[in-house]
Amino acid sequence: MDYIYEHEMKVRDYECDMQGVVNNANYLHYFEVARHEFLETKQVNFHWLHERGIDLMVARVDIRYKYSLKGGDRFVIKLLIRREGIRLIVHHDLYTLSDERLCTQCTTEIIALKHGRLTNGAIFDTLFAEELNKNAL
Amino acid sequence: MDYIYEHEMKVRDYECDMQGVVNNANYLHYFEVARHEFLETKQVNFHWLHERGIDLMVARVDIRYKYSLKGGDRFVIKLLIRREGIRLIVHHDLYTLSDERLCTQCTTEIIALKHGRLTNGAIFDTLFAEELNKNAL
Amino acid sequence: MDYIYEHEMKVRDYECDMQGVVNNANYLHYFEVARHEFLETKQVNFHWLHERGIDLMVARVDIRYKYSLKGGDRFVIKLLIRREGIRLIVHHDLYTLSDERLCTQCTTEIIALKHGRLTNGAIFDTLFAEELNKNAL
Amino acid sequence: MDYIYEHEMKVRDYECDMQGVVNNANYLHYFEVARHEFLETKQVNFHWLHERGIDLMVARVDIRYKYSLKGGDRFVIKLLIRREGIRLIVHHDLYTLSDERLCTQCTTEIIALKHGRLTNGAIFDTLFAEELNKNAL
Repeated sequence: MDYIYEHEMKVRDYECDMQGVVNNANYLHYFEVARHEFLETKQVNFHWLHERGIDLMVARVDIRYKYSLKGGDRFVIKLLIRREGIRLIVHHDLYTLSDERLCTQCTTEIIALKHGRLTNGAIFDTLFAEELNKNAL
Repeated sequence: MDYIYEHEMKVRDYECDMQGVVNNANYLHYFEVARHEFLETKQVNFHWLHERGIDLMVARVDIRYKYSLKGGDRFVIKLLIRREGIRLIVHHDLYTLSDERLCTQCTTEIIALKHGRLTNGAIFDTLFAEELNKNAL
Repeated sequence: MDYIYEHEMKVRDYECDMQGVVNNANYLHYFEVARHEFLETKQVNFHWLHERGIDLMVARVDIRYKYSLKGGDRFVIKLLIRREGIRLIVHHDLYTLSDERLCTQCTTEIIALKHGRLTNGAIFDTLFAEELNKNAL
Repeated sequence: MDYIYEHEMKVRDYECDMQGVVNNANYLHYFEVARHEFLETKQVNFHWLHERGIDLMVARVDIRYKYSLKGGDRFVIKLLIRREGIRLIVHHDLYTLSDERLCTQCTTEIIALKHGRLTNGAIFDTLFAEELNKNAL
């Protein structure tokens, strides 16, 4: 499978804890940023959807930490997606830019609510038709 | 299995995002707080260990979000632990206090580094002998 | 002047940076928590006001850092308030609990918006009549 | 006076609270990022200094919030600096990129510690000679 989107970032010093490495929770922030940036390539954003009663919610996260990012490190997050019933499965691989080391792997299950009620996820096909079809081949 | 430790907290408004619910990353912060509070019952803390060259690191997190916390919600995190090779497995159940609703379930794998090198995890037996033995029976 | 409210907290390890002390931005979080807890003693909260079109916004913060909090430190935030035109001035003194050392002093100016428009701040008199009158004497 | 450094950023959705705007504490994070990026143009960074026993600490922050940033907003932070005794005074102006609106103004006082002891701030002259001289003219 080919990555469908890549987003580059840089560690901010305040994201590191007293061990000098990025605190484990902040990786979820990074992955959210990458997903929201990908969403913006579809000419919609998180806030625009929320105002129309649609909330994309994280239902599950499975993240493996292999190598710790430090203050100032540059990295890239690469995304894969697929549908699985009502869910959109988003896989995130995070690599350092300097030596392309795989630091973290994360699989997230996303569900879509409409006015607070769970939907069948058809919106994912609407939003991400191109990427979901390509990967289905 | 019985829970070995419980820690009560309250959602802070800044932890909520524009959807009005706690952002998914902040649950990892909550679980870290509960683990560190548990650690303090052993008369050691994260910082004390770090200064002695011992770093407890999160190697994997698997978290399921079932029900969203909102601003001001009071909740309790209940912990279970077990050894699995070099890893300490910590399971966290998060319940609202008002109606005892199970909001989030999280399993975390912890490893111990000494001066930056992976250890066999013997320190977990030293620190948590009482709880690991009780649960082994 | 007498403090009108006190709120105790404890530093969470993830709030500390690689210098081993609480990152400067997190103090603003602490002060927000103290203000929102004080607000709740009036049987309203930030979210309840927001849903009624009323947003209390921070217009200015002036904070002096005298002594750094470290991981696990317990502290208390003590509040003073007064009206100044359309603004509510909230002063926060933060002391460690162990040795009552004054760590941080912060003065915040709060304004009230109704449906996005600046108000004359009359709501502050409604909410905090007791404390504003007492201090006026 | 001319700005000595500019750093562009974009609001991340998790930095917004339930009011849909960036939480007031996060601006201090933004300003720290801008200062640390500026520092890196001098071929040193926060971590490198810390490992050599030098800690640059924020002693005071005075920040005025004029216009709120929202999710996805792009903005630029522009810096001015000057010496004032043992302190480095850093002024930050934050503008939206789309319409160049001045959102926030912040003045920060920075002190330098060496092995935990307050210094006379000579390191600021060493690090920022070019900018401090230019502005002194």
